[in-house]
Amino acid sequence: MNNFSSKLVENVVNELSKLPGVGRKTALRLALHLLNEEKSEVELLANGLLKMKEEVIFCKICHNISDVEVCNICTNPRRDASLICVVEDIRDVMAIENTSQFNGLYHVLGGIISPMDGVGPNDIKIKELVGRIKNGGINEIILALSATIEGDTTNFYIFRQLKDFDVSVSAIARGVAVGDELEYADEVTLGRSILNRLPYENSIRK
Amino acid sequence: MNNFSSKLVENVVNELSKLPGVGRKTALRLALHLLNEEKSEVELLANGLLKMKEEVIFCKICHNISDVEVCNICTNPRRDASLICVVEDIRDVMAIENTSQFNGLYHVLGGIISPMDGVGPNDIKIKELVGRIKNGGINEIILALSATIEGDTTNFYIFRQLKDFDVSVSAIARGVAVGDELEYADEVTLGRSILNRLPYENSIRK
Repeated sequence: MNNFSSKLVENVVNELSKLPGVGRKTALRLALHLLNEEKSEVELLANGLLKMKEEVIFCKICHNISDVEVCNICTNPRRDASLICVVEDIRDVMAIENTSQFNGLYHVLGGIISPMDGVGPNDIKIKELVGRIKNGGINEIILALSATIEGDTTNFYIFRQLKDFDVSVSAIARGVAVGDELEYADEVTLGRSILNRLPYENSIRK
Repeated sequence: MNNFSSKLVENVVNELSKLPGVGRKTALRLALHLLNEEKSEVELLANGLLKMKEEVIFCKICHNISDVEVCNICTNPRRDASLICVVEDIRDVMAIENTSQFNGLYHVLGGIISPMDGVGPNDIKIKELVGRIKNGGINEIILALSATIEGDTTNFYIFRQLKDFDVSVSAIARGVAVGDELEYADEVTLGRSILNRLPYENSIRK
């Protein structure tokens, strides 16, 4: 798809195809769709993008995205400020919020320790996490990172950084997913789910 | 994904998820990607969209997209202006241009006759096509619509509209696709490819 009779459309296709998971054919489909939309719709999208890029900031406490200096999770008086859940990025916050199972605050690292990608402990918000704990009032840190080597490395690094503080550090449970059949679970997961078994009365869904 | 800590991001996700083939999860991924991009990149996209919507027009001869009143295909003196290829939409023009096998002009109908979708002959640019032929200088019309009932209906309608003019009307060949194995071709296609067989010397790829 290289024969554009309009440079303006070609330009939009070029920009759209820089987005993750959007190839040139998809970009063209999106561009032509927008070309047929009402002008007001296209303006909503374009101006929304500009406004988002201009105005969205990161909460200065938990580093979650926010429209104000301190996000609405950190300022919510009904949340347990003594409990911090450490996550890799913003999407993890949304995923955990959707479970309705967590009522504490978050700390968004903005990445994960990954020497292969050149990401070290100082490239993510670990110092800021330690700072929050130094300020006091925190009883527990829940590590909720991905179950990968990088996630485990980051968990271990944070655990060591926090070992001199009076704060308990836990990690989310790894195990066979709810709804999964046992025979299809991988061996490592199944093994950990046996090692980390719970008293039955604690294991049932609430 | 409904717990947005930023209304500005939520707004962009809402707009992006109106695009065809973009669900809320994809929209969120795109929004967060753009949030991490350079500001200049986001401006290129947003301003490109606005400029496209503002300035792109449809060629007043062939109804292809264009940045000027008459598109660069219609004004190209090296193209055969006596030959018009009739297509459904703009993407078909690009697809045919990419084959490098056609050197005439186009006529973009902007749709196809489809009573089920409430699209009749007057909703697409058939009158304009007849007008071009009335103006003279056209020797042949190639109908290049999809091989569907709607495409066949539109072909037949156009054919009847043109029967009193001194212009030959052809339709693109239907047959087994180049590279396809015969046993997997559907019966109708295979049947038509036998009925519409060519002298061997005309059938080989050039």
